[in-house]
Amino acid sequence: MENFTFYSPTEFIFGKDTENECGKYVKKHGGSKVLIHYGSGSAVKSGLLDRVTASLDAENIPYVMLGGVKPNPRDTLIYEGIELCRKENVDFILSVGGGSCIDSAKGIAAGVPYDGDFWDFYEKKAVIQKALPVGTVLTIAAAGSEGSGGSVVTKEDGMLKRDAGSDLLRPRFSILNPALTQTLPAYQTACGATDIMAHVFERYFTNTKEVEITDRLCEAVLLTMIKETPRVIKNPDNYDARANIMWAGTVAHNDIVGVGRSQDWNSHGIEHELSGLYDCAHGAGLAVVMPAWMEHVYTHDIMRFAQMAVRVWGCEMNFQNPEATALEGISRFRKFLHEIGMPINFEELGAKTEDIPTLIDKFGIGDGETWGFVRLKASDIEQILLNAVNAKV
Amino acid sequence: MENFTFYSPTEFIFGKDTENECGKYVKKHGGSKVLIHYGSGSAVKSGLLDRVTASLDAENIPYVMLGGVKPNPRDTLIYEGIELCRKENVDFILSVGGGSCIDSAKGIAAGVPYDGDFWDFYEKKAVIQKALPVGTVLTIAAAGSEGSGGSVVTKEDGMLKRDAGSDLLRPRFSILNPALTQTLPAYQTACGATDIMAHVFERYFTNTKEVEITDRLCEAVLLTMIKETPRVIKNPDNYDARANIMWAGTVAHNDIVGVGRSQDWNSHGIEHELSGLYDCAHGAGLAVVMPAWMEHVYTHDIMRFAQMAVRVWGCEMNFQNPEATALEGISRFRKFLHEIGMPINFEELGAKTEDIPTLIDKFGIGDGETWGFVRLKASDIEQILLNAVNAKV
Repeated sequence: MENFTFYSPTEFIFGKDTENECGKYVKKHGGSKVLIHYGSGSAVKSGLLDRVTASLDAENIPYVMLGGVKPNPRDTLIYEGIELCRKENVDFILSVGGGSCIDSAKGIAAGVPYDGDFWDFYEKKAVIQKALPVGTVLTIAAAGSEGSGGSVVTKEDGMLKRDAGSDLLRPRFSILNPALTQTLPAYQTACGATDIMAHVFERYFTNTKEVEITDRLCEAVLLTMIKETPRVIKNPDNYDARANIMWAGTVAHNDIVGVGRSQDWNSHGIEHELSGLYDCAHGAGLAVVMPAWMEHVYTHDIMRFAQMAVRVWGCEMNFQNPEATALEGISRFRKFLHEIGMPINFEELGAKTEDIPTLIDKFGIGDGETWGFVRLKASDIEQILLNAVNAKV
Repeated sequence: MENFTFYSPTEFIFGKDTENECGKYVKKHGGSKVLIHYGSGSAVKSGLLDRVTASLDAENIPYVMLGGVKPNPRDTLIYEGIELCRKENVDFILSVGGGSCIDSAKGIAAGVPYDGDFWDFYEKKAVIQKALPVGTVLTIAAAGSEGSGGSVVTKEDGMLKRDAGSDLLRPRFSILNPALTQTLPAYQTACGATDIMAHVFERYFTNTKEVEITDRLCEAVLLTMIKETPRVIKNPDNYDARANIMWAGTVAHNDIVGVGRSQDWNSHGIEHELSGLYDCAHGAGLAVVMPAWMEHVYTHDIMRFAQMAVRVWGCEMNFQNPEATALEGISRFRKFLHEIGMPINFEELGAKTEDIPTLIDKFGIGDGETWGFVRLKASDIEQILLNAVNAKV
């Protein structure tokens, strides 16, 4: 196991009706003037925003509001938010929405006390030294941003998707009410589930030996997702299944399942170019990329893929031919994604084969290679995308 | 799943040589004058204490020292620590040792700013409202106190073992260097491993339905312990196995594997009377009590015990007779404890059958019953202890 630090100071408030407590938690964590940041009209229509503002009113905490966060959140709205916070002397950002909303809130939080352009953090030109505190009321189990220090934002000019991270961006509190996710369309639910599973797989495929505890914790989250996702697709009102998925989504990405081991974030990196170019859902892009990535890299460590196949997908180990077991595991993963309604190839995603050179170009790898379980060159990324073009179950 | 809050703000610094950073972390978390609290001479002899003080010196942080913490830490030393801290204007407690040392440090931390007798918190006569910050350098994987808000202390007068808990007692940072545990005798290592597994089992046996994520996370920790414990008993210098156990020990008890579900702490409660009366190691007492408790309660939920047997102990499910599977799982647990060198019955522990009435009396249940997976009356506790008297593998 490698040396590591793990710091997850977020206070999680989980369960039915917990959104009514957000005023109390803003106060506890020192907020005296709040920016409520939200996305589309669904938080308004469902009455969620009313419950949140009532909760702030009850604590006499003033607020301003900024809606309009889109999936793959844009830099343009973040600039707007930074300006608004400065003008209104906001000292706490409350995100009411999903991962995009939280990531946008984090961008604003980092930008407000910073003299330069907040995009510097996402271009890795500057390190976050200070940020406003962020709280969240989560409406979809997916990104894990409610418990992480990461943020992914898309620059509207050129649709460049980039990430920034800091322990300073970890939310002070996150309110997780699984009932809020019961109204999500099946497609969005499945996209979220795919994202959660991808967060685990990016940690599972490691070159670090002897990491049984994190291997097992990764498998625990994956087994949960495999059991619970089809249940909520079939019955969106299943509160308990929603609850298991929601907590799995947080555990999957606050890094407790990934500490002390090398990780691999290449599927996420490749996917970012897909959702950057086509503005597709991140989870949908991952469903196309991740099994294709597995098919390209599995020979690097056949026994690790066989372990996934046996422990996660319930395959029987083929002791004469472990490679067959490894491939069976990948195949079951893709079949699972298909069954929960995810696209599994370019056509189903709405991507085009002729865009592959553009995608590689935007990835910006040039003659270099990535880091990770298997280092990828441009030619590897091309092959992974070609694997994805005509993938079938 | 039940509503819950989860808050684990401890910063974990994990890996080789990390004790040399403790000065840096005391400073980061606001300490300006430190009480170094430790146990026996082993921290002195190994040079650990020298490295810790050198690390504080390097940051120009003054300190006073208080050693002498015993296993099953005593109230008497805590009174002494409180007085010393007040006299020396200490504002940060640094525990250098195992769970007993941390629990003693937490007692001091709660007592210093409190006007009354700190024992009030352990008698549940008062709630902790304020505490000095605590940091830890851990030397044994066992109690999980390095990541929890709990503390267990023994009142010397009458050897009463009682617990207190508060998020205010969660350490600000914990330094976990698995190499520090390599010099532990096999018996202490095994006691620690048993404690870790017990922390998981106390959460695993629940009456809450539909808690797949926490079930799976519990099983992940248990599977890790089952793999790694025999390896370190056989080869004490196996760093990676030590590392897996150490992180498992923290994950087992910061409650991430237990949130949202009813729990059962009756085995711990019964064991506290054993170690209170005989001053035996907590883990050794648990090895005697826990399988005996399982044998007494398994009929309450045979399928849950069958699940444990299959998923944790690798038993084949007997579909014709799930009860046989459940019993096979319990039997394998006891066999495992025996194989790692733990006592499994009264004689091996040094306990006496004729003390059973005294043990029940000290438990203080009277005509009432406990809370938990199965509520226990005095007669149940008697039966559990009788199960433990002549237990065999």
